[in-house]
Amino acid sequence: MTIMKNFDVEKYLQNGKDVYAQRENIEKLADKLSKKEYQNIVMIGIGGTWMEWYPVAEYLHHLSDFPVYLENAGELLVKKDINYLTNKSLVLTSSDSGDTKEIVAAVKYCNQKGIDVYGFTKNPESALGKLLKESINGSLAECENAYLMYFMLTLRIYQNWGYYKDYDRWADQMKQLYPNLLRFREEFEPRAQSIARKYYNAPLTMTVGSGMLWGETCMFSMCILEEMQWVRTRPVTSADFFHGALELVDDTLPVYLIKGEDEYRALDERVERFLPKHTKSFEVFDTKDFVFEGIDDDFRQICSPMVITSLLTDRLASWYQQYTGHDLNFRRYYRQFDY
Amino acid sequence: MTIMKNFDVEKYLQNGKDVYAQRENIEKLADKLSKKEYQNIVMIGIGGTWMEWYPVAEYLHHLSDFPVYLENAGELLVKKDINYLTNKSLVLTSSDSGDTKEIVAAVKYCNQKGIDVYGFTKNPESALGKLLKESINGSLAECENAYLMYFMLTLRIYQNWGYYKDYDRWADQMKQLYPNLLRFREEFEPRAQSIARKYYNAPLTMTVGSGMLWGETCMFSMCILEEMQWVRTRPVTSADFFHGALELVDDTLPVYLIKGEDEYRALDERVERFLPKHTKSFEVFDTKDFVFEGIDDDFRQICSPMVITSLLTDRLASWYQQYTGHDLNFRRYYRQFDY
Repeated sequence: MTIMKNFDVEKYLQNGKDVYAQRENIEKLADKLSKKEYQNIVMIGIGGTWMEWYPVAEYLHHLSDFPVYLENAGELLVKKDINYLTNKSLVLTSSDSGDTKEIVAAVKYCNQKGIDVYGFTKNPESALGKLLKESINGSLAECENAYLMYFMLTLRIYQNWGYYKDYDRWADQMKQLYPNLLRFREEFEPRAQSIARKYYNAPLTMTVGSGMLWGETCMFSMCILEEMQWVRTRPVTSADFFHGALELVDDTLPVYLIKGEDEYRALDERVERFLPKHTKSFEVFDTKDFVFEGIDDDFRQICSPMVITSLLTDRLASWYQQYTGHDLNFRRYYRQFDY
Repeated sequence: MTIMKNFDVEKYLQNGKDVYAQRENIEKLADKLSKKEYQNIVMIGIGGTWMEWYPVAEYLHHLSDFPVYLENAGELLVKKDINYLTNKSLVLTSSDSGDTKEIVAAVKYCNQKGIDVYGFTKNPESALGKLLKESINGSLAECENAYLMYFMLTLRIYQNWGYYKDYDRWADQMKQLYPNLLRFREEFEPRAQSIARKYYNAPLTMTVGSGMLWGETCMFSMCILEEMQWVRTRPVTSADFFHGALELVDDTLPVYLIKGEDEYRALDERVERFLPKHTKSFEVFDTKDFVFEGIDDDFRQICSPMVITSLLTDRLASWYQQYTGHDLNFRRYYRQFDY
């Protein structure tokens, strides 16, 4: 068995059980919300939470034409009036700490307009916790927690609304999520070490992704490498890669291609064909290489961000820290003072 | 009078007259399209053209709730079905050469679904020219040409539909656009030289922008610096800057803040307050510093991408070329072979 760097297996599996245990609360909330007559769903995130809501919005768009909007909280606050944000909107948000400045301000703004907001925070006594009409109080520290809980809430609502029929089977199988993600971590561990050792001090790292994994591509770039490691990155979508970014490719620029299993995969594959012809410095992270036990294949798209976050924002991040010597918790600016 | 690097004043003003002379054709097309009963507008771009359509979509969203979608041609081609793309969609696109691979394929796809596409290309005999139901045949080589023509078409339609009332005054004043943009170039020329000299060989340059200028922020980053200069960049929105990217800021990383005049300006200003406290290496490009003659202030938002493109994708690019010694026309990969 692989012993993983800075990783407590028991704590992780217990965390998984704690998150899964929110299922009852989440379903109760979902069933209550399903009875209201909403005209759209508006998700509000910023930074990491925007990136986590991204694949949820993306997936819901696959299931139905029901309008789902993802808003950046900072931008929402400066837009004069967003016509679709009304008291007929189901507004969802999240903040692990519950005190993310823009999220708190955006929820206040909604409340002033008479719009209830529901969401996730580990801390019901936080500023956000107090502003939310109702909240689910689970830890969002691991991104897979966030994905699991956001999908539980929204897919249950979609099942109630007749837009999705597989919620119960999916939610039952999610009992197996954390043991699977643990195994994927173990399988990936040697590669995480070797990639971090090879590239931790590259002057710039390009990250390429798309569709269901675009949020995670940004998450690993912005939240891990930039914010937590002060490592310079250039995130770019697989479609945009061919319109500018490609000209930078040579052996001095590591490129990380994050490859998913949705319809955007064809765009990722195009990048994958290009890379080996023009650089030796690239890595492909393909969710398809990881085989779930006890989770059906038709749930792989939903689970793909959970796989990538296990590999990159957890394992690879941990090994970057080992080689850069830069503590993942150390910031010089973010939340250090007012700006 | 400032003599500008690699710039032919007479040719530029003549180009402006040629583009403006399309007004009659564009209005004729707009008036014809206005009579059809569309349910939405779908703009299709990729790379530079996506970035040019971006502020047009953004501005139309300010004027009306009428649904306007901007699609990346590469992504459109892999999405199974886009529910809002129907024969009740007014589909617009563009390609200067008329042979941009993804654009041609996307228009073919639309045609196969029985959807007419209208657009802009300098070459009516190109693959795109032949696929378009009707086309406006002006040069898109200067981005301000594209902005002017896209806005002429869409604002005229919006006036016809009752969503805008100032089209005639705006279009009349646009006769003065190119002389103004010429003067802004001249005013900016010494600064362009000094900035390029100072930063042309920086290992990474961060570009920050938002709202109406997000397209131009990407344009200067991806199309100029990355594609045409092989200079590494990190484009980021003013809102996202504070969630990751900010931790990279120090004197070794030039940051270019592109500051506009729409509601996102407050977000740009937040970045502007942050930067001088933490780095000496930053430049602010504020459209507000440039005063139009003969163009009313209420048109400044529409014109803001035209100002920035004059400064950055034209003048600053030209000076980068001078210092890097890298010809703006030289590519190693883009359009050099199949991929």
